[in-house]
Amino acid sequence: MEYKERLKQFIQELKTGYLPSVSMDFVIFGFHEGQLKVLLLQWEGIHDWLLPGGRVRLNENLDDAAYRNLRERTGLGEVFLQQFHTFGNVIRNTYYAIEETLDRLGLSPEDLEGLPGRDVSVGYYALVEYTKVKPSPDLLTQEIRWCSIDEVPRLLFDHNEMITLALKTLRRQLSYQPIGYNLLPDKFTMPQLQQLYETILGQPLDRRNFQKRMLGYGILERLEERKAIGAHKAPYLYRFDMASYQNALAEERMFII
Amino acid sequence: MEYKERLKQFIQELKTGYLPSVSMDFVIFGFHEGQLKVLLLQWEGIHDWLLPGGRVRLNENLDDAAYRNLRERTGLGEVFLQQFHTFGNVIRNTYYAIEETLDRLGLSPEDLEGLPGRDVSVGYYALVEYTKVKPSPDLLTQEIRWCSIDEVPRLLFDHNEMITLALKTLRRQLSYQPIGYNLLPDKFTMPQLQQLYETILGQPLDRRNFQKRMLGYGILERLEERKAIGAHKAPYLYRFDMASYQNALAEERMFII
Repeated sequence: MEYKERLKQFIQELKTGYLPSVSMDFVIFGFHEGQLKVLLLQWEGIHDWLLPGGRVRLNENLDDAAYRNLRERTGLGEVFLQQFHTFGNVIRNTYYAIEETLDRLGLSPEDLEGLPGRDVSVGYYALVEYTKVKPSPDLLTQEIRWCSIDEVPRLLFDHNEMITLALKTLRRQLSYQPIGYNLLPDKFTMPQLQQLYETILGQPLDRRNFQKRMLGYGILERLEERKAIGAHKAPYLYRFDMASYQNALAEERMFII
Repeated sequence: MEYKERLKQFIQELKTGYLPSVSMDFVIFGFHEGQLKVLLLQWEGIHDWLLPGGRVRLNENLDDAAYRNLRERTGLGEVFLQQFHTFGNVIRNTYYAIEETLDRLGLSPEDLEGLPGRDVSVGYYALVEYTKVKPSPDLLTQEIRWCSIDEVPRLLFDHNEMITLALKTLRRQLSYQPIGYNLLPDKFTMPQLQQLYETILGQPLDRRNFQKRMLGYGILERLEERKAIGAHKAPYLYRFDMASYQNALAEERMFII
């Protein structure tokens, strides 16, 4: 099927099978060895980049829709998704932007009739180890790629604002919940953990304070073996004590860096 | 106009003037001298209580709709509202609950035709000094009152869950933002400030640690005058240094109790 036909079919489904004025968008942060990236995609026929997103089926829970859309659009499955804000300014109107590209897409304004004028979009974010996941574009997506957080271009709609707020929320999360499980190797050194925090916060942290506080939370287990990196001063290896870690996640004990 | 007619008119407006599948609900916490309450209302003709809520006009920003609805439903104006979560389970369906009470309301199922089957509801919370505000019920509301946080009854829809999550978010907020402006008198004592934190957290705090940390944040200004409460040991009076306070709000420096 031609792209134009597929798009028409997609729009037809939108009119009947989904909640009319609700959408969702995903800020997927990718961490790997001191780098923080965000997952962006490009719709076929449209030059500008945007965040992966989706809609909610009529009989689908909002969070279930989030996982389904993320899987369909990116191939990502077992990701911890977290709602961070719902965006509802009138001017964020998705379809205005599509209208501007109607010619390029080979559609007429009539094809859009019956669509609601605007969406309120629920924003979700996640943090993943980006070398472990393989994003796979869906039919409507031309390209999908990780983009360094410092090099995000001007995106469609209000998606730059979404990334800014998601990053602020992720950083705030460090003040009440532990982080690191699924992002670090099973056994890791204190410098590796510190690098994770520094990457997310975007600033260096004092080594001694960091270590003292981290050990104070009681979520780390120091192992007998050390990391082999040279003749002497091999750093200790740690792993998370998962019972304490889960407790800290649930209790939201304050985690101060 | 009879209640039944007003309700029919209200439903008619819902079908044409508002976003079809988005609603909002408000968890308004009221603080006064060590007590934490929440604002509940009762619709005319329905026994169970619920949170104040509302809908979004077709050409209205989400946050503007929040302030308008809050004002219309409760008479509250200058309140700092904060989004905390969007609720979208299929079974939270608002109209199922109304359908159960159709008989009592004198409506037939046909009156509801054309309404969307379910809403996704954006939750907002606020914290106010409850003696300073006078909630005023709107046309559809039979009664509106403050209810102690420990005595909230079984509410309609998923509104108990909303209160639980709003309270969790408010408590979390204490870990990264200062609180107290607009809730305490202009000049207040350290015990008054501590009582505010203890009331929100629902647990006692160590007096000396609290004072030391609070003074450490640099948002308090100690006044020359003291509170006159007896012959000696009159406690110091403080007020917020608003420039530092606003800075701390914006920067989200971590505020640990």
